[in-house]
Amino acid sequence: MPPQRLTLQEIVRRLGGEVAGDPAVEVTGVATLDEAGPDEVTFLANPRYRARLAGTRAGAVILGARDRDATTIARIVADNPYAYFARTLALFHPPREAVAGAHPTACVDPGARVAPTAEIGPFAVIAAGARVGERARIGAGCAIGEGASIGDDTVLHPRVTIYHGCSVGARCILHSGAVIGADGFGMAPDAGKWVKIPQVGSAVLGDDVEVGANTTIDRGALGDTVVGEGVKIDNQVQVAHNCRIGAHTVIAGCTGISGSTVIGRHCVIGGGVGIVGHIEIADGVTVTGTTFVTKSIRQPGVYSSGLPMMPHADWLRNAAHLRRLDTIARQARDKAAPGEDHGTDEH
Amino acid sequence: MPPQRLTLQEIVRRLGGEVAGDPAVEVTGVATLDEAGPDEVTFLANPRYRARLAGTRAGAVILGARDRDATTIARIVADNPYAYFARTLALFHPPREAVAGAHPTACVDPGARVAPTAEIGPFAVIAAGARVGERARIGAGCAIGEGASIGDDTVLHPRVTIYHGCSVGARCILHSGAVIGADGFGMAPDAGKWVKIPQVGSAVLGDDVEVGANTTIDRGALGDTVVGEGVKIDNQVQVAHNCRIGAHTVIAGCTGISGSTVIGRHCVIGGGVGIVGHIEIADGVTVTGTTFVTKSIRQPGVYSSGLPMMPHADWLRNAAHLRRLDTIARQARDKAAPGEDHGTDEH
Amino acid sequence: MPPQRLTLQEIVRRLGGEVAGDPAVEVTGVATLDEAGPDEVTFLANPRYRARLAGTRAGAVILGARDRDATTIARIVADNPYAYFARTLALFHPPREAVAGAHPTACVDPGARVAPTAEIGPFAVIAAGARVGERARIGAGCAIGEGASIGDDTVLHPRVTIYHGCSVGARCILHSGAVIGADGFGMAPDAGKWVKIPQVGSAVLGDDVEVGANTTIDRGALGDTVVGEGVKIDNQVQVAHNCRIGAHTVIAGCTGISGSTVIGRHCVIGGGVGIVGHIEIADGVTVTGTTFVTKSIRQPGVYSSGLPMMPHADWLRNAAHLRRLDTIARQARDKAAPGEDHGTDEH
Repeated sequence: MPPQRLTLQEIVRRLGGEVAGDPAVEVTGVATLDEAGPDEVTFLANPRYRARLAGTRAGAVILGARDRDATTIARIVADNPYAYFARTLALFHPPREAVAGAHPTACVDPGARVAPTAEIGPFAVIAAGARVGERARIGAGCAIGEGASIGDDTVLHPRVTIYHGCSVGARCILHSGAVIGADGFGMAPDAGKWVKIPQVGSAVLGDDVEVGANTTIDRGALGDTVVGEGVKIDNQVQVAHNCRIGAHTVIAGCTGISGSTVIGRHCVIGGGVGIVGHIEIADGVTVTGTTFVTKSIRQPGVYSSGLPMMPHADWLRNAAHLRRLDTIARQARDKAAPGEDHGTDEH
Repeated sequence: MPPQRLTLQEIVRRLGGEVAGDPAVEVTGVATLDEAGPDEVTFLANPRYRARLAGTRAGAVILGARDRDATTIARIVADNPYAYFARTLALFHPPREAVAGAHPTACVDPGARVAPTAEIGPFAVIAAGARVGERARIGAGCAIGEGASIGDDTVLHPRVTIYHGCSVGARCILHSGAVIGADGFGMAPDAGKWVKIPQVGSAVLGDDVEVGANTTIDRGALGDTVVGEGVKIDNQVQVAHNCRIGAHTVIAGCTGISGSTVIGRHCVIGGGVGIVGHIEIADGVTVTGTTFVTKSIRQPGVYSSGLPMMPHADWLRNAAHLRRLDTIARQARDKAAPGEDHGTDEH
Repeated sequence: MPPQRLTLQEIVRRLGGEVAGDPAVEVTGVATLDEAGPDEVTFLANPRYRARLAGTRAGAVILGARDRDATTIARIVADNPYAYFARTLALFHPPREAVAGAHPTACVDPGARVAPTAEIGPFAVIAAGARVGERARIGAGCAIGEGASIGDDTVLHPRVTIYHGCSVGARCILHSGAVIGADGFGMAPDAGKWVKIPQVGSAVLGDDVEVGANTTIDRGALGDTVVGEGVKIDNQVQVAHNCRIGAHTVIAGCTGISGSTVIGRHCVIGGGVGIVGHIEIADGVTVTGTTFVTKSIRQPGVYSSGLPMMPHADWLRNAAHLRRLDTIARQARDKAAPGEDHGTDEH
């Protein structure tokens, strides 16, 4: 298949923005400033890279109004060049459309309601009472439990599990190995053993949610685990039972969120973060990578912890003191000039 | 199917305990103090919530002897109200029973020994020499390797892998994506490359073990990896080769345990914990979330580390000092009054 | 099947090295110094264990030239006893060979190119344009996407996903649940929502790579994610889009590597490590477990962070001070003798 060719004019017609220079310039793809060739359109989104514009071999460039005159290459002027780049890239790489119907090897229960335009891949299992929406794509080896629901235009890559009764919205993307609705981790101690607390809630994902590979989102104990619309979750994230994640929040890889925690809207949670259970995080909070969130965050802003790397010899010398920080603090304080901080300024 | 209705008397007959008030009160489910309606039984397990008892709309309440007279609602007095709640919830939500037989699409080797009462789901693979116990349920797409063994009444949710020769006890629950018995991570360096050390041990899980979604428990190198009876493991936990985990220990999500480490009985390991290899942790140890366990723990008790979150601006200011803590300690000590701690009180 | 019996002479003929003592001594397996019996060969690789040599019941021992005379047991003297042990173990436990052909339940697209000597397991899916090399073994339930490529002699354990267009080299081992080539985590913010950036690069794994269970390696955004030859990755590791990992580097379990980071050759990355994106790590760097790598590492050496465990009561007392370390440092410094360090010795 020859590569698709689009003129700048055609791109602007489909995505908005404005052409500066020759609107008939044709491109066949998108690449970075350094790597784009004459057949490709590049983009300038981060002012830090403006100097590279001079050296680019790109045939065209997407940029913002303030950079409109920074080059004589044919260009598309857009309000948000980075988002425009993303949309342009999608023009050249549109998601594959669903091929209507179930693969002959798929196992679709007669009691499932599968839209006629949905695609069910090889060895997928759709249980009784499950619902699959229009144009949804269920990948090879997926397992959709009884009464579960998959929205219109949602894509499940191969080997995704949706437990019984769970619900995934429209236009979601779930990557391979994701598990939605496994039992939350709830046990009651009794005479030196653990009694399982049945997890009878569900997991509910809103529209436009993306879930990374091997990420797990548990079902609720008594109520539901809820992931809001537009939430984007990276790989290997663990969301425990009864969490609620607000709309348009993003969560980077390897982060774990303990049970019943509520995260606001438009938050950005970095990678490798640990969040304790039963707390609340306000809207608009950013948590940087590997932070240990030990209590509720009431105010928007950026929060951190994480012991930064040092040469091992330094770490050996310094880390021992972490175990006696209280003593050090007392020694330093006792000798400090009067009027200096004597408290522990706890937040 | 109409909801099951149970009188308090029937519940007590099945689970023990004692009714105070009208034993003929009927309930159809269990809910929290705040959410329960007149048809539901609630529970008071944590004295912190006692004040909410006054406001509950529940038709009945499970509570301990000391709270017997804290309400006039019909109630069940139990020794351990939280465990009683768990068991009552299970009365209303009993686990689905196995549907005897193999799904027509399952691939069961003639050399496997599958109990006639076991359920084998669609596209499950049971290899030669594998054994599946009575009333076990093997979910869709599970792969049970040669000579592996699954105990009676054990449930494997969809897409669980049990490698060859591994053994899972009775009444276990393994969630989707769990992998038992993959090769441990063992290599010998040789001339700038790595020579794989064949992992010829196995992984052995005792009875009543629960394993969370996408958790991995590796097989041993020369001996076995052993998970004791009643151990409960959350999602995305990694147990490396030749670990031994004592009975009735619980391990929360995202924790990683390095090779050959021995964890005692009745331990509670929090989420996101990292435990180095070749150490021993005594019985009855609690490790809080995100702790980095760097050496053996000989005494029961609670152990922690984890740098607590702070506003990012504070973190920037404080974290730089972590790299020069040795200097700070020296400065503080040199100025401290004679007789104060001058050591590093290493544990 | 009776255990294989090998004389020391036969082992040396196949693996090199030299026999000291009776070359006709026969062994049927390999075990540790403490556990080996008279029919087994043991090994002494770590001088720390030399004292155990006196007590071993092994019929033979693999050791280095400097320990040649440390025992009178029949022995094999090898340059690298640990690697020799690994190779001897492999003689007794050779990997199972591929059984040529596709299982009748496998779903192999007519447009796939599968070598006649390759083994395709039950319910595996090989899409159009995919290539599977000679003697490769594709486990049950694996999904190989369109145009993906699997090298000769590579083993995919059950339930591995290779996304479209990704490439795995020769003699690789991928464990169950591994996901290669899922979309990288790239979104552009736009008017309070996130626009997905299509991930149109690929993931390319070199020869002799091992990938642990439930590990995820994302495809690149515009270019590729590249894992060099001989790289060994443990379980539950996350490698984000556009990372490049140099040859013969090893990465232990639960580590997460953010996007576009470049790791050198012959590095050793411990478990639970977090590495930020867009940095470079030199060849020959060792990072110890749970370290948070916050910036590029230009020099070989050992790097660490990680707050070491302490009793919880101590942690409560010490951790509060971490939030006011700047104040403590100032107090300590202000009181320090003139001429002492007043800087922050930032690296």
